[in-house]
Amino acid sequence: MSETLKRLAAVIESRKPVNGGDPEKSYVAKLFVKGDDAILKKIGEEATELVMAAKDARVDGNKSQVLYECADLWFHTAVLLAQFDLKPQDVLNELARREGISGIEEKASRKAD
Amino acid sequence: MSETLKRLAAVIESRKPVNGGDPEKSYVAKLFVKGDDAILKKIGEEATELVMAAKDARVDGNKSQVLYECADLWFHTAVLLAQFDLKPQDVLNELARREGISGIEEKASRKAD
Amino acid sequence: MSETLKRLAAVIESRKPVNGGDPEKSYVAKLFVKGDDAILKKIGEEATELVMAAKDARVDGNKSQVLYECADLWFHTAVLLAQFDLKPQDVLNELARREGISGIEEKASRKAD
Amino acid sequence: MSETLKRLAAVIESRKPVNGGDPEKSYVAKLFVKGDDAILKKIGEEATELVMAAKDARVDGNKSQVLYECADLWFHTAVLLAQFDLKPQDVLNELARREGISGIEEKASRKAD
Repeated sequence: MSETLKRLAAVIESRKPVNGGDPEKSYVAKLFVKGDDAILKKIGEEATELVMAAKDARVDGNKSQVLYECADLWFHTAVLLAQFDLKPQDVLNELARREGISGIEEKASRKAD
Repeated sequence: MSETLKRLAAVIESRKPVNGGDPEKSYVAKLFVKGDDAILKKIGEEATELVMAAKDARVDGNKSQVLYECADLWFHTAVLLAQFDLKPQDVLNELARREGISGIEEKASRKAD
Repeated sequence: MSETLKRLAAVIESRKPVNGGDPEKSYVAKLFVKGDDAILKKIGEEATELVMAAKDARVDGNKSQVLYECADLWFHTAVLLAQFDLKPQDVLNELARREGISGIEEKASRKAD
Repeated sequence: MSETLKRLAAVIESRKPVNGGDPEKSYVAKLFVKGDDAILKKIGEEATELVMAAKDARVDGNKSQVLYECADLWFHTAVLLAQFDLKPQDVLNELARREGISGIEEKASRKAD
């Protein structure tokens, strides 16, 4: 497991109000207080920003913006996972499972159905 | 670094046509052949599906669907990263950098500007 | 009321299976048969395509692509409205209502709360 | 042409800074000052909110929220159109053109290619 993802999940978990997270001081705690819809709106927003950054990168060559927006999107998916008491490790396990049982292309065949 | 993410990135990289990826056999190779727009459409689509899965999970309690759609989204962001010759590790480094320089809440203060 | 929107709504309505729409022959009938999620996925997809088209238009000057993707998005919102037994006219009424009671900027003040 | 859409387009046009729109007083003028990316982010955000509202409506029966979010989305597409010196009427013309030349199902056959 990535140490970074593990630490990220731990910090996010600590921001839950039930764990002492303070919405006055913490952006993540504020998201938790606002609830599902606030988090889901961020998922849609960050996905859009990632699309825009990729388009921009083809014009100005600024790939770091793609990286940055991708980090934003992963960050907010980690918040969403925590909201459902799931962890980044669960997502990695799912990705590994797909690879294990039928290769990385499982998804393709499934989607092609 | 997560072994799963490392293997995922390696498999995706091997699906690039320049590395012998065959769009007839591989979903990822086909995405690479189609190019940026096809990959970006998937980002938008998978983000929407994740939002829908989270909404559904509050009704039917099926959290595994949230996990599944999150894996789909991460998978396609990994394809996008590869399309820009970036790696999941770069995203993890960016997440670690944020934590390191100013705490996980850096983003919040930045966004609040 | 726009005659075009009225005709659009009428055609979409006629594509509902209960009104004789045939999913073998009609794209819209097929969406209705698939149900909410298929329609909502299209909303997310077409919104992403509109964002991409706007980005492209700044590079290649092709504004017709923006128009085209916007039409796609409105088209699919009309399908979604029909799925909920709503009509484009209801949306226009809501837009007119906002203008009437507090000016077009009502939304702004509300969102700023 | 819908009078509501015509008035909406006129009001939005009047909010452009070049037409005297004041970003201190007007939400739309502020969007114009911020530029493409701010408007496109709203497209992504409002599309996500529409998806969420449709999901919620199946649980609580509140269809007016679907209407409301659809109006928000159309409103912001009208701002995007204005940003590209296009009008809602152009979108209606495009929708009418599709109906005229090949029926409302043109899109389906095109997409199926």
